Amino acid sequence: MATVTPWEVKGNIDYDKLIKEFGVSKIDQPTLARIQKHTKELHPFLRRSIFFAHRDLNWALDQYEKGNKFFLYTGRSPSGPVHIGHLVPWMFTKWLQDKFDVELYFQFPDEEKFLFKDNLTFVQAQDSLHDNMLDVIACGFNPKKTHFIVDTKHANLMYPEAIKVAKKITFSTVKAAFGLTNEHNIGAIFYTSMQAVPAFLPSVIAKKKIPCLIPHAIDQDPHFRVSRDVIPKLGYDKPASIQCRFLPGLGGMTTDGKMSSSAEHTAIYATDDAKTIKNKINKYAFSGGQATVEEHRKLGGNPDVDIAYQWLMFFEPDDKKLQQIHDDYKSGKLLSGEIKAILIERVQTFLAEHQARRKDAAKMIDQFMLKVK
Amino acid sequence: MATVTPWEVKGNIDYDKLIKEFGVSKIDQPTLARIQKHTKELHPFLRRSIFFAHRDLNWALDQYEKGNKFFLYTGRSPSGPVHIGHLVPWMFTKWLQDKFDVELYFQFPDEEKFLFKDNLTFVQAQDSLHDNMLDVIACGFNPKKTHFIVDTKHANLMYPEAIKVAKKITFSTVKAAFGLTNEHNIGAIFYTSMQAVPAFLPSVIAKKKIPCLIPHAIDQDPHFRVSRDVIPKLGYDKPASIQCRFLPGLGGMTTDGKMSSSAEHTAIYATDDAKTIKNKINKYAFSGGQATVEEHRKLGGNPDVDIAYQWLMFFEPDDKKLQQIHDDYKSGKLLSGEIKAILIERVQTFLAEHQARRKDAAKMIDQFMLKVK
Repeated sequence: MATVTPWEVKGNIDYDKLIKEFGVSKIDQPTLARIQKHTKELHPFLRRSIFFAHRDLNWALDQYEKGNKFFLYTGRSPSGPVHIGHLVPWMFTKWLQDKFDVELYFQFPDEEKFLFKDNLTFVQAQDSLHDNMLDVIACGFNPKKTHFIVDTKHANLMYPEAIKVAKKITFSTVKAAFGLTNEHNIGAIFYTSMQAVPAFLPSVIAKKKIPCLIPHAIDQDPHFRVSRDVIPKLGYDKPASIQCRFLPGLGGMTTDGKMSSSAEHTAIYATDDAKTIKNKINKYAFSGGQATVEEHRKLGGNPDVDIAYQWLMFFEPDDKKLQQIHDDYKSGKLLSGEIKAILIERVQTFLAEHQARRKDAAKMIDQFMLKVK
Repeated sequence: MATVTPWEVKGNIDYDKLIKEFGVSKIDQPTLARIQKHTKELHPFLRRSIFFAHRDLNWALDQYEKGNKFFLYTGRSPSGPVHIGHLVPWMFTKWLQDKFDVELYFQFPDEEKFLFKDNLTFVQAQDSLHDNMLDVIACGFNPKKTHFIVDTKHANLMYPEAIKVAKKITFSTVKAAFGLTNEHNIGAIFYTSMQAVPAFLPSVIAKKKIPCLIPHAIDQDPHFRVSRDVIPKLGYDKPASIQCRFLPGLGGMTTDGKMSSSAEHTAIYATDDAKTIKNKINKYAFSGGQATVEEHRKLGGNPDVDIAYQWLMFFEPDDKKLQQIHDDYKSGKLLSGEIKAILIERVQTFLAEHQARRKDAAKMIDQFMLKVK
């Protein structure tokens, strides 16, 4: 049994089951074709169903086609280092921003993890905030069209809107949506109101309805399920959303359905150097290969559970190459060490580029911060 | 049975019972003598036990005597016009400010009533905020030592501290302290965290512990009971507090234990003109007198239930005059119409002065707003 809530993801995740449980829609071929009409090519995450579900995406495209451009909203709750799993929705968000040429509001709810983690201090959360901003900037978002919202630093903007959301949500609702109990603290109980705000804040600022599209990992859906009920009551449109599945942890999909920052041996951090990347993948990446070379040549590997292959679905953009790797691994032509070597090279290149952009990021923070008039 | 919570006060209030229920201490003679040592005279509200209870007042005086001056913290939750009952704790707070020469932080939690009243819009709360500020300024606080905190306008200061409070309070606690239920909204549930903040915010700003003394009406005590538990966990001292009883409504103490803004015939507003004051008192003030002049001369009136006399305890500063009125009313010498006439004159004079100061108040708001560095 898998658990998927905004604060806990564990076990082997059945995404088809989640679609039904959460009530999101699968991204179908007509929707993909409609996206492609605007973007020319389809992002690998769409071709490979890594972004696999949505809510009202066609409505957002309707609006876009009428000349009423949506803005994008996503975020990062600072509590520790960013790992490559975190980068997945941001890479895709950057692609959407570039292809649709739209504004992005990027929220840093710097109180969330502080409120939900007993041992995290506010000072630690603030340290992570700064560090995590560097990784977000390193994703290459357009600084002219990207606006960072930090809950505690933009509270003058956020709190007056959050209370309007909060007034429409009872404790019974958050109990049902998130499984919160009487023993949760009242900040944690209030928190979802703050996460709702960026979905309509640009409309508040512009004094007109602007459609919102939220790319996010599926575990955040309960927040937006609740806020989609509330936001129309405040006079704004329901935000649309598009959901991705998780990059699994190194330990394999049955145990590490979602990579976790706190379990170091399951995660590769955005700042890991080439040697660390190599060592971690060689040492920890769950293998779908056989016990001996002889058996592997005879029986072949299982790409469906092999972490090297699973990660290449995220990090090898070339479909033909990926198919070749898949087939060679399955036939036994490609050994476990060899497929890991391919992944290591891809991740090293990817993170070297990320880290190069990250070096210059600190001096760009101010440029990215949402300006308050 | 009386109900006394921060959001509802009704019935005939037994203040001695409240002292036991709430766990506050009665202000005793040694404490009064200790105050008088510093203030020379005692405010009529102290002489007459209108301010009747406290928490840790002697600790605040200890600190004061050691040269560690306390600051005062009180507030007003905007939701409608200010009535003369609201002015009672503020009059006393001004006296404390003048006599002890201390700073005052005056909170306007402009989200509270919005969150607790279904029909109050945020815009209405903002209108009341402006209007109510005029009445607070008209009380004559020292503009150099008085700092207005508006929750939604000082949210950048308030929210980061409120979440630290919130993290230490479970829903079970607010359920027990305030009687909130699962059907209350999550903003209302969170709210007490915001009311806790001004009790230690000056210490946050000054980066050292400054003692806090909170003058307030007794119905607000549940907030401070909770926050006194939490604030030491954040590294600051428990705030001290001093509680007053309510000015009863015109309808009399058995029904209108606390004057209510929403019941117009029970309240005299701070902006009522002389004629309105006269009409309301003559028409609505519950009389402790007898049915006929003859009977009144024979049996005398009952000052314990007579609203004119009860209000004179708040608004006639001269003890001798008050005693005379008491005795004359009780003996039947003073008729109900006559005691009402005395009250009318006192309230008219009091409010005429208030209204004269209120005229110039709008241009002083900016001067009173807490400046954020």
